[in-house]
Amino acid sequence: MTEPQGGSDPSLFETRATRDGDEWVIEGWKFFTSNARTAAFLIVMAVTNPEVDVYRGMSMFLVPTDTPGVRIVRNIGLMGERVPGSGSHALIHYDQVRVPAESLLGGEGQAFVIAQTRLGGGRVHHAMRTVGMASKSLDMLCERAVSRRTRDGLLAGKQSVRDYVADSYIQLTQFRLFVLYVAWCIDQGHDPRAVRRDIAAIKVLTPQVLHDITQRAIQVHGALGVSDEMPLGGLWMTAPVMGLVDGPTEVHRTSVARQVLKGYTPVEGLWPSQHLPGRVAAARAKYAAHPDALGSAAVGWSAEDLAADLEHEVGNQ
Amino acid sequence: MTEPQGGSDPSLFETRATRDGDEWVIEGWKFFTSNARTAAFLIVMAVTNPEVDVYRGMSMFLVPTDTPGVRIVRNIGLMGERVPGSGSHALIHYDQVRVPAESLLGGEGQAFVIAQTRLGGGRVHHAMRTVGMASKSLDMLCERAVSRRTRDGLLAGKQSVRDYVADSYIQLTQFRLFVLYVAWCIDQGHDPRAVRRDIAAIKVLTPQVLHDITQRAIQVHGALGVSDEMPLGGLWMTAPVMGLVDGPTEVHRTSVARQVLKGYTPVEGLWPSQHLPGRVAAARAKYAAHPDALGSAAVGWSAEDLAADLEHEVGNQ
Amino acid sequence: MTEPQGGSDPSLFETRATRDGDEWVIEGWKFFTSNARTAAFLIVMAVTNPEVDVYRGMSMFLVPTDTPGVRIVRNIGLMGERVPGSGSHALIHYDQVRVPAESLLGGEGQAFVIAQTRLGGGRVHHAMRTVGMASKSLDMLCERAVSRRTRDGLLAGKQSVRDYVADSYIQLTQFRLFVLYVAWCIDQGHDPRAVRRDIAAIKVLTPQVLHDITQRAIQVHGALGVSDEMPLGGLWMTAPVMGLVDGPTEVHRTSVARQVLKGYTPVEGLWPSQHLPGRVAAARAKYAAHPDALGSAAVGWSAEDLAADLEHEVGNQ
Amino acid sequence: MTEPQGGSDPSLFETRATRDGDEWVIEGWKFFTSNARTAAFLIVMAVTNPEVDVYRGMSMFLVPTDTPGVRIVRNIGLMGERVPGSGSHALIHYDQVRVPAESLLGGEGQAFVIAQTRLGGGRVHHAMRTVGMASKSLDMLCERAVSRRTRDGLLAGKQSVRDYVADSYIQLTQFRLFVLYVAWCIDQGHDPRAVRRDIAAIKVLTPQVLHDITQRAIQVHGALGVSDEMPLGGLWMTAPVMGLVDGPTEVHRTSVARQVLKGYTPVEGLWPSQHLPGRVAAARAKYAAHPDALGSAAVGWSAEDLAADLEHEVGNQ
Repeated sequence: MTEPQGGSDPSLFETRATRDGDEWVIEGWKFFTSNARTAAFLIVMAVTNPEVDVYRGMSMFLVPTDTPGVRIVRNIGLMGERVPGSGSHALIHYDQVRVPAESLLGGEGQAFVIAQTRLGGGRVHHAMRTVGMASKSLDMLCERAVSRRTRDGLLAGKQSVRDYVADSYIQLTQFRLFVLYVAWCIDQGHDPRAVRRDIAAIKVLTPQVLHDITQRAIQVHGALGVSDEMPLGGLWMTAPVMGLVDGPTEVHRTSVARQVLKGYTPVEGLWPSQHLPGRVAAARAKYAAHPDALGSAAVGWSAEDLAADLEHEVGNQ
Repeated sequence: MTEPQGGSDPSLFETRATRDGDEWVIEGWKFFTSNARTAAFLIVMAVTNPEVDVYRGMSMFLVPTDTPGVRIVRNIGLMGERVPGSGSHALIHYDQVRVPAESLLGGEGQAFVIAQTRLGGGRVHHAMRTVGMASKSLDMLCERAVSRRTRDGLLAGKQSVRDYVADSYIQLTQFRLFVLYVAWCIDQGHDPRAVRRDIAAIKVLTPQVLHDITQRAIQVHGALGVSDEMPLGGLWMTAPVMGLVDGPTEVHRTSVARQVLKGYTPVEGLWPSQHLPGRVAAARAKYAAHPDALGSAAVGWSAEDLAADLEHEVGNQ
Repeated sequence: MTEPQGGSDPSLFETRATRDGDEWVIEGWKFFTSNARTAAFLIVMAVTNPEVDVYRGMSMFLVPTDTPGVRIVRNIGLMGERVPGSGSHALIHYDQVRVPAESLLGGEGQAFVIAQTRLGGGRVHHAMRTVGMASKSLDMLCERAVSRRTRDGLLAGKQSVRDYVADSYIQLTQFRLFVLYVAWCIDQGHDPRAVRRDIAAIKVLTPQVLHDITQRAIQVHGALGVSDEMPLGGLWMTAPVMGLVDGPTEVHRTSVARQVLKGYTPVEGLWPSQHLPGRVAAARAKYAAHPDALGSAAVGWSAEDLAADLEHEVGNQ
Repeated sequence: MTEPQGGSDPSLFETRATRDGDEWVIEGWKFFTSNARTAAFLIVMAVTNPEVDVYRGMSMFLVPTDTPGVRIVRNIGLMGERVPGSGSHALIHYDQVRVPAESLLGGEGQAFVIAQTRLGGGRVHHAMRTVGMASKSLDMLCERAVSRRTRDGLLAGKQSVRDYVADSYIQLTQFRLFVLYVAWCIDQGHDPRAVRRDIAAIKVLTPQVLHDITQRAIQVHGALGVSDEMPLGGLWMTAPVMGLVDGPTEVHRTSVARQVLKGYTPVEGLWPSQHLPGRVAAARAKYAAHPDALGSAAVGWSAEDLAADLEHEVGNQ
C-alpha cells in the first residue's frame, strides 16, 4: 500500500494498474512492503480509475513475487535489524508487471474499503499486542527492582523507582481497560462512528504506553538495559514504529478530535453558555418570577436570598 | 484530623485527649477543619493512648463548637476564596476543652479505623466528582472550539486545538473507565489489597486529569479563561487541592508501587530472568536433549534449526 | 487593544474611528482594558482606514475616561480577584465617543507599529518578571523542604522532593540564561528576525516555567500551599495568565517555527540528504575515483576498505 | 570500572588487587568495558585496601589484554549493534591476573580521584556531543518539514509539525546556552561545588534533549524514520545510553538537589517566612512604630493606609 512519495496517504498514491485485454499491467513504486524478501506473492494497491477519488478508484491485486517486472530495489530494515540490506520491508519497483484478470482481489475500486476493514481491526490488534509488550516491560522493571541491590538497599526501596512502577502500572491499567472497552463496543455492535473515534484513541495511546514503560524499565536496568542482552532494546525500537504503523499518531489524534467536536453546537452570541454573568442574570430572572417557588418560609430563604447565594457561588467561581 | 505540624500523617499528631472522671480533656491544635466557621459541632481525632502506635492509640470525639476552650484562631481560605479572614478551613486551638465521656465516637482507639473506612470511599468520591468537573471543562473547551472564530476560521479547525480536544477526551475516557472499574471491584468484594492499590491509583490520576483538561480549556478561552467570569478559574484552583486532599499524591503513588511490587519475587543470581544469553542457552539445552521433539522431519526443521532461529530472534531482540 | 470577538488578533478588530471635522468619533467595544476602573484616560486602538490591511489601517487615540459615551460595562476580575464586579480589566463600550483631532497618538495608521514596538519589550519584561516569580516559588519550595519534618525526617531527604528541587533549578537556570541571552542580543542590535524568534521562544517558556515550579512548591506545602495564606495561590493563578497576555502561546510557538524553518531549503528528489544509502554510494564513488587519496599504503587501508568501513558505520547507524 | 553486581556505584565494587612481591594479583569481574575486544590494554579499577572507604581504597591498573587470566566472557553489544556476540562492551573475568608493580596508575588509593577528574570533563563532553547530535536531528526534522508534501501541502505548514520544530529549537537553544555557561564557569575557575551542581544539571538534561528532538524527527519521517536507512535510529538508541553513561540520571538529579538545598536554612517555628498573616502583622507593627515614615502628608497616604494596602495585596495574594 505505502508509496515512497505518499506515505500512508492513499490520495497521493501514483501506482497505476491498466486493463489490457485479459491482463492488468501494473506500473509504479511501493515502499515498506512487509516480508517481501521471503514472500511467494505480494498484494498491491493500485489506481485503476484516476477519474474518481481514491476511495473508489483503487483496486487490489495479487502478484506472484517472481512475476517478470517485479524488482525488489532494497530490503530495508527497521532500526536495529541485524544485517544491512536484508531487512524485512522492501522498496519495490513494479515495471510493467502483467497479471491475469483474475488477480483482482474483490471488485474493481474496492481497495480502500478492503483496506479500511482490515485497518480497524489491525489497530485494535496492535493495541492488544502492546498491552502484552508493555506488561513484559513492567514485569522486567519490577523484577529488577526487587532483585537489584545498591549501597542503600534494594532498588525497590527508592522513591524514584517506586514512581516508575506506580506510573507504569497506572498507565498500563488505564490503557488495558480502554482497549477492552473498545473491543467490547465492537462486539456489541455499537455506533460505528463512536467505535472509530475510540479505535483512533487507543491508537494514539499505543506508542506512548509502550514507550514510557519501556523507558523506565531500561533506566533501572542500567548498562544491561541499553545492551543487546535484554529484550528491552527491541521494545524500545518498537515504540516509535507503533506511532507510525497503520497511520501516524497525528492523523489519529485529529480523527478523535473531529468525532468529539461533532457532538457540540456553537453557542449563539459572544459569550459561552457557562459565562457566569449570564447565569447569574438568568437565576435572578427565574426567582424574581417565582418568589415563593421554594417555600421560602419553610427553609427560611427568600428568592432574593437564593439569587444572592448563586451570585456568591459565582463570586467564588 | 490534620494538624499544623503534621499535615495528614497521623503518626505526627500531638493533640491529646485525657480521661478525667466522666469527661475527656482535649488539648492541641487542628488545621484545615472544613466548614468550622459555620458548624454546630466538630469531630476531633486525638491521641488517647500514647503508649501504643497511632493506629490503635487515637480516638474520635464529637465536640460542640461552642464548648469553652474551642477557639478558631483563623478562618483560612482556599486560594481564590473571596474574603480574607472568612475562609472555610479553620485553624483551631483546643485549650483544655472538656467533653462528656459519651462524646467518644466508636470505641477508644478506633479513630484510625473509622477514618480509613471513610477515606477509601472518600477518595473514590473525589475521583467521581472529578470525572464530572473534568467533563465540564471538556464541554467548555469543545463549545468554545466550535463557536470562536479567528481570521483563519473556527478554533475547531486548528490542529493545536484539536490536539487539546483529543488528548482531553482520551485522558478523561481512560480515567472514567478506571474509576468505574474500581467502583465495580468494590461492589464485587474483590481482594481488599488490590482494591486499595487501585483506589490509590485513581487518587494519583485525579488532580492530573482535572488539571490538564482545565488548562487546555482556559487556553482556548483566552482572556475570558483567566477571568472571574467563567467557572474555569475555580476548577483551576481545585486541581492542586485534589493533589493534597485525603493525602498527597506522593503518598498514594508509593502505595500503588508497594502493592504492585509485592507481586514479584527476586531473581536468583546476577542476571534477570529475561536475560537473552540465558534464554538462548536454555533453548539449546532443551532441544539438544529432545532432538526429535517437534517432528522435525514433518516440518522440515531440525532441533538445531530451532535453536538457531531463537538465537536469531534474540539477535533481533 | 483587545476586543471581545477578536481577542488579540488585530485583523478581527471592529472598533472604528471616523474623522468628523476637527474630531474623531469612536464607536465599538474593547475588552480586558487593564486598570480602566481607576484610570484618568484610556488608549484606544481603532480602525481609521478599512480600505487597507490592519497593519496600516489602525490608529491610536488618547481618550479621557470621563468623555461622554465611554461606558465601563463590567469590571472583570482575573481569577482569584477578591470582589466580583470590581476587577481590574474592563469591558468598555465606546458609544459615539468624540475626541479632538490632537488625541491621535503618533500618525494616522501607526497603531500597529507602535503596539509592536512595545510588545517585543513587553514580552521580555514578562519573561524577566517570571524569572523573579519562579525564583520566589523555588525559594519557598526549598525553605519548606529543609524546614518541614515528616515521620521519616525532613522533606529535603525525600527523593521526590529532591526531584522537584532539581527539576525546578534546572528549568529556571536554563530559562534565566535564555532570557539574558535575548536581552543581550537586543542590546547588541542582532538580526531583528533572529531576535523576534527568540523573544517568541522565551514567551513560550514563560508560563510553563512559572507553572511547573509553582506547582511543585504548592505540593510540598500541603494544605498551606492551596490556602490563601501563602503567595503560591497568586502565582498559580498568574501562570495561565502568562500563557495569554501579549498573545497566546500557540501563536508564539508558530512564530518560532516559521523563523526556524526559513533557514532550511527543500531537498531535491525523494530522499533526505542524510539518507544512508545515498551517503554510502557517494562515499564509494568518491574513493573509487581517488583510490590512493588517503595514502592507503601508509595507513594500511585501501579505498575499498574505507567504503566498507563507512558502510559498516551505516550498518550500525 | 563498572561491575556486574554494582553498576557504576564504586562502593559496591568487589574486584580486588593484592600485592604479592613485585606484582599485583587482580581477581574479579568487570562489565561494560568499552572496546575491550580490540584493545591492546585494559584499565582496571580494583580495591587495594578494603579497610578504608572506596574513595581512598581503590587503585587503577594498566593490564595488557593478553595477560594470562584475562578472559572476555562476552562481547556485549549496545542495542542495535549488528552482530550478536561481537559487541563493543565486554564482560571480563580477571582470574588471578598478575601484573608488575609499575602497572599501578597514579598512586595507591588514587583510583577514585583519577576517575572523578575525568568524569566531570567527560560529562560536559557528552553534553557537548549531544548538542551536536540533537542539532543533527533538528536539521533532519526541518529539512523533511520543508521537503515533504502531503495532500494539504508541505509538512512545514502543519501546526503539529511546527510545534515539533519550535519545541525542539527552544529545548536545544536553552541546553546549548547552559552547556556553554558551564564550560565558561569551568574556564573561569568558579566555585567547584557550583560547577559540580551545574555539570550534574546538564547531565540530567542530556538524554532528554536528544530523546525529545530525535523522537519528533522520527515521527515526521514516517516509515523512513524507523528504518535503518536514516541516522535517526542510531540517535534514538543513543538517547537512553546518555541517561546511564557516567552515572544514571537519578543520581545526578539528586546531586543537583543536594547542592541547591545547601543554600537554604530552615525557618524557625511552624510557618514559612512568606506566610502572609505573619507578613501583614510585621508590616502593621512596622508602620505603627513609624507613623510618619513615608511622609504621608506629601503622598496622601497614612501608615494605616499602607498596612491596609499590603493587606489588600495579601487578599489578592
